[in-house]
Amino acid sequence: MSESFKQIQNGTITSAKGFEAGAVYAGINKHSLFKLDVALLHSETACNTAAVFTTNKVKAAPVRLCQKMLPSNKIRALMVNSGIANACTGREGLQDAQTITEMVADKLNLHPENVLNMSTWVIGRRLPLNLIKSYLPQIKLSKDGGHDFARAIMTTDTCLKETAIRVEGKSGSYTIGGVAKGAGMIAPNMATTLCFITTDAAIDAETLKICLKKAADLSFNMISVDGDTSTNDTLLIMSNGRAGNPPIKKGSSKLQAFQRYLNEVCIYLAKCVAKDGEGATKLITVKVTGAASIKEARLAAKTIASSNLVKTAVHGADPNWGRIISAAGRSGAAFDETIAGLKIGSVELWRQGMLVDFDLEQIRHELTAAEVTIELNLNIGIATAVAWGCDMSEEYVTINSEYTT
Amino acid sequence: MSESFKQIQNGTITSAKGFEAGAVYAGINKHSLFKLDVALLHSETACNTAAVFTTNKVKAAPVRLCQKMLPSNKIRALMVNSGIANACTGREGLQDAQTITEMVADKLNLHPENVLNMSTWVIGRRLPLNLIKSYLPQIKLSKDGGHDFARAIMTTDTCLKETAIRVEGKSGSYTIGGVAKGAGMIAPNMATTLCFITTDAAIDAETLKICLKKAADLSFNMISVDGDTSTNDTLLIMSNGRAGNPPIKKGSSKLQAFQRYLNEVCIYLAKCVAKDGEGATKLITVKVTGAASIKEARLAAKTIASSNLVKTAVHGADPNWGRIISAAGRSGAAFDETIAGLKIGSVELWRQGMLVDFDLEQIRHELTAAEVTIELNLNIGIATAVAWGCDMSEEYVTINSEYTT
Repeated sequence: MSESFKQIQNGTITSAKGFEAGAVYAGINKHSLFKLDVALLHSETACNTAAVFTTNKVKAAPVRLCQKMLPSNKIRALMVNSGIANACTGREGLQDAQTITEMVADKLNLHPENVLNMSTWVIGRRLPLNLIKSYLPQIKLSKDGGHDFARAIMTTDTCLKETAIRVEGKSGSYTIGGVAKGAGMIAPNMATTLCFITTDAAIDAETLKICLKKAADLSFNMISVDGDTSTNDTLLIMSNGRAGNPPIKKGSSKLQAFQRYLNEVCIYLAKCVAKDGEGATKLITVKVTGAASIKEARLAAKTIASSNLVKTAVHGADPNWGRIISAAGRSGAAFDETIAGLKIGSVELWRQGMLVDFDLEQIRHELTAAEVTIELNLNIGIATAVAWGCDMSEEYVTINSEYTT
Repeated sequence: MSESFKQIQNGTITSAKGFEAGAVYAGINKHSLFKLDVALLHSETACNTAAVFTTNKVKAAPVRLCQKMLPSNKIRALMVNSGIANACTGREGLQDAQTITEMVADKLNLHPENVLNMSTWVIGRRLPLNLIKSYLPQIKLSKDGGHDFARAIMTTDTCLKETAIRVEGKSGSYTIGGVAKGAGMIAPNMATTLCFITTDAAIDAETLKICLKKAADLSFNMISVDGDTSTNDTLLIMSNGRAGNPPIKKGSSKLQAFQRYLNEVCIYLAKCVAKDGEGATKLITVKVTGAASIKEARLAAKTIASSNLVKTAVHGADPNWGRIISAAGRSGAAFDETIAGLKIGSVELWRQGMLVDFDLEQIRHELTAAEVTIELNLNIGIATAVAWGCDMSEEYVTINSEYTT
């Protein structure tokens, strides 16, 4: 029996068996795009659940609460609100997050230890618990509710970020789905922004955590919009085992396959976030090859993808390629300019540290594409890494000059 | 005899005794604001000379040449061109820098080992040596030529950056003057952008280097415009001893005084650079107190001053103060949000990690000032640091989207 996986049409967080979701508009944020700001996900049975969180020393209250509760094999529900991040809110904020888990437990006949809570958007404000309490009962959970869940967690996002894949074959038959949000304050350094993954594959919480960390390192930890790491970044996975497969065990080839598929889902969603960066008009893919180590390849790729000067040059399709070299040079990765090489799209500019005879107009043309590819060969070792970012437009500044007002 | 120092009116790099300068327009850069792009500084007698350079692994050719030549007690002249940075230009670029020192030596009847060369602006292009050779003879050196020198090294700068101070008193009578340039690719990490200091005080090159490093750490290493470290950053000091004072020796109180005055000059020029950041409309001063160590205080202050999200919020006078906390939280400095405090201008927002009852309108008012002050008390130790940055405007993006074209 051969192995296959395919993207499910309109796939989302409720595509895996046993998950349902819904959302409501409680008025936490008057700018909410789809007039939805409280999202609820529910699993028919308990989920093995793991997460990776922001490395920012200032962690939002719900992040601190989740950190205490996970990994867990008891999670049944996840409530997420946009509008207010419940960060920098002290002891009261932590109590608010706890109270929300109690409200959700009440609604779903669960215990608070079965319920996770997450928040996003403006830092430094208390959540309006009265509004949440009033509107929570109105949420109707459904099998198709993943899309509303995805809409309700959006902030300055301009498009839905959701996907699901169906795996069939020798490593089992199961579904992995996910939703993400994020357009600003994005330079994850462990997890990122908010991303929630569900699967009906059976896999224990500790193993999930290891898989999730690996997937995060290849996906959300390799994107940057503005170099700022949020106080709320969370990447979370819930597995309810409802696909009916035997549990996927540590060290098995089935786990290797699961890791590959999880990577696919995370990279897909992370690229969605990078592409939808605040004010962005282009996706930038930076591939670094020939680095001395994976760590240095990642460092160089992320530094290039995060550079304001690279991002603005790509925005204006200005062939100012020296900025790419300069960013790599300050990244900390070993760099010998007498042997390095550089390509933008299909045009080679620099080979063995020497200017290649190229046409600036060709580079300008490559930089007008919706997806711009930069490939830097450090020519020192064999390690490679890929990072994703977006261009920086005047619109980015405008959005962020008027964020809370 | 008491000690005094005062800023000299119209002070510049030729205010100290025995220095003269001049500039010419060779047409290296057609965008040159004052139609000057080759600057020349000359000292009547040999200077003890030291410098600190960019930490970028990609170093411009003139930086590599200067690194070989310094510290030195033989320097008589410095030629700087704007328009082209002579970076990423390989062996030919290094030869070009060497050739320029020979041209200047010819003009001034010196030996190439008496001549330094520095370049700035676009990376990845060869210098037009024929143009430089044609126009160099036209430069007329004069005692008042420091201002033309300062104009000729400008790139996207919108104002001259020059100063000089006169010291009179028990630690000697001498002058320290300096010019700087820089508006983009500024996040120095050792030295910065281009800054040239002259003094007629007598002090040996090794001691100058130690003083310069200390001054850089308090000034140019604490500013950021866009987080990008240039390939050409150089902070250089030349001392010709023409003031007639006895040499200032290591470990003396006179050296302590000299250090204080050098710090003043460097901080003044560094703040000029921060304030004139590309597209900037406001100077941001970030003071971090109560840090566990000086290193952590510096880290937190620089991270806040460099954050795109803080910079755009200040631009729009948007009281989105959570971004300041979030930036400090990701900086790497120890941060306990239950004890930290925050002030913007004169308004206290956060005390012992609790929201203070403040008026958002008051903060908005503080953020409309031409100089915005942010003060974060980490309340952990006793270390402090100050960093300077600027707001980020739509204009920043526009300038950098069209840089080379």
